[in-house]
Amino acid sequence: MSNVDLDELRGWLHESGEVGIKYFNKGTGRRKADASWVTEADLTIEHMLTQHLAARYPEYGILGEEQVRQGLDREFIWALDPIDGTASFVAGLPIWGISLGLLRHGTPYFGLLYFPMMGDWYWAEAGGAAFLNNESIHVSTADEWDSESWISVPSDIHRRFDIDFIGKVRNLGSTAASICYAARGSAVGSLFTHASIWDVAAALTVLYAAGGVAITLSGDKIDTAKMIASGACKDPILAGAPKHVASLRPHIAVRPRI
Amino acid sequence: MSNVDLDELRGWLHESGEVGIKYFNKGTGRRKADASWVTEADLTIEHMLTQHLAARYPEYGILGEEQVRQGLDREFIWALDPIDGTASFVAGLPIWGISLGLLRHGTPYFGLLYFPMMGDWYWAEAGGAAFLNNESIHVSTADEWDSESWISVPSDIHRRFDIDFIGKVRNLGSTAASICYAARGSAVGSLFTHASIWDVAAALTVLYAAGGVAITLSGDKIDTAKMIASGACKDPILAGAPKHVASLRPHIAVRPRI
Repeated sequence: MSNVDLDELRGWLHESGEVGIKYFNKGTGRRKADASWVTEADLTIEHMLTQHLAARYPEYGILGEEQVRQGLDREFIWALDPIDGTASFVAGLPIWGISLGLLRHGTPYFGLLYFPMMGDWYWAEAGGAAFLNNESIHVSTADEWDSESWISVPSDIHRRFDIDFIGKVRNLGSTAASICYAARGSAVGSLFTHASIWDVAAALTVLYAAGGVAITLSGDKIDTAKMIASGACKDPILAGAPKHVASLRPHIAVRPRI
Repeated sequence: MSNVDLDELRGWLHESGEVGIKYFNKGTGRRKADASWVTEADLTIEHMLTQHLAARYPEYGILGEEQVRQGLDREFIWALDPIDGTASFVAGLPIWGISLGLLRHGTPYFGLLYFPMMGDWYWAEAGGAAFLNNESIHVSTADEWDSESWISVPSDIHRRFDIDFIGKVRNLGSTAASICYAARGSAVGSLFTHASIWDVAAALTVLYAAGGVAITLSGDKIDTAKMIASGACKDPILAGAPKHVASLRPHIAVRPRI
């Protein structure tokens, strides 16, 4: 790893995961202005990790989901989601994790993700291989889909999309996890909405290193630099192996809002 | 507990969970005649548990998902799913668990479920309280739904259902788990299809003891005795608090098959 210390970062994320586990299945959190959830666990983990990161990497910017927003004009910027999947976490569902991405000039450069309930670690750096628990991973190479193939979908699929797909749809409750399951070739694709930079910075690094791509449903490239400056991507995003993304795209339609 | 030894059963399910964890994220299983998955973990756990149950409860029948089918004319019948959520298990997703139900004259009488990745235990006996990890649970008492309310849905929702619901939909990959999340009041409802007796025997005991009900989308009662004799329930099933099931039903439509 060129300029980050992977073992040290893993130590910090493991410590953060222990905090998450301690709060899991206890209490319910509170709602933010947009009605989404935030918990003590989110706030505690973001505070812990930004303290560590600011001390060890003083020359890097940091952008956290909950509160932290500093040095966004720097070459390197950490994008941190202390708990991706907070609504799942509050519901007692197991797919939530800590997502730490590093962007260079706005582009995914390094990513590390830890999902404590599964004990799963994903990481990659741009130009290298992608890893899950020390084994290299790759997006799906399947030539065909069948009834057991699956894609991850957002939790408003019933209101927002018409999807013509022979296989299964699954909502995982975490955008970062949904990209990781595409990166490892378990899901043939991942469809997600309202993505903010902290949801995707780490997971896209993993996805790209695993041979995957991510585009908007309109067919545009994902502009992570713009997401740093302007907030969540307005368009739904589709991620996976290039051939699957190309095949899936015409089968996913956004419903007209009624 | 009247006539089963809960601590002993928990010991056997814990042992089974260790087997599941050992096989998790290793290999991919194989497809059954209906194209669904079976793994060595399913077969090993079913064998282990039926050996224990037959030795300790020789007068009871046993019906397992994979192979075992004996004494189905007895007053008490165990209904066992060694891994509910095998497709999730194979996909590396965390929601899969061991479901052990006991039916008396075909009716849910006792249920114990263990989800190893979360470490969650659910249990109940008919007429008693329902428990999650030693705390009693109850179906949702919410008076209203909002954008963060959620229901669990089957993985063919995109092909089979039109759902008009203000909140989120989530596919958990395990019918038993989806019923348990309704029983604990996390989900306001659970919609599932193709339910076999081993998927639901334990979880319905928990749901009923938690104050919940389950009906077909046509409005009929669930006939578990018939499911023992005739196989999976043909109709989709909706489970949850009585008031939520009544409110949700008109908002869920089965699509005409094209």
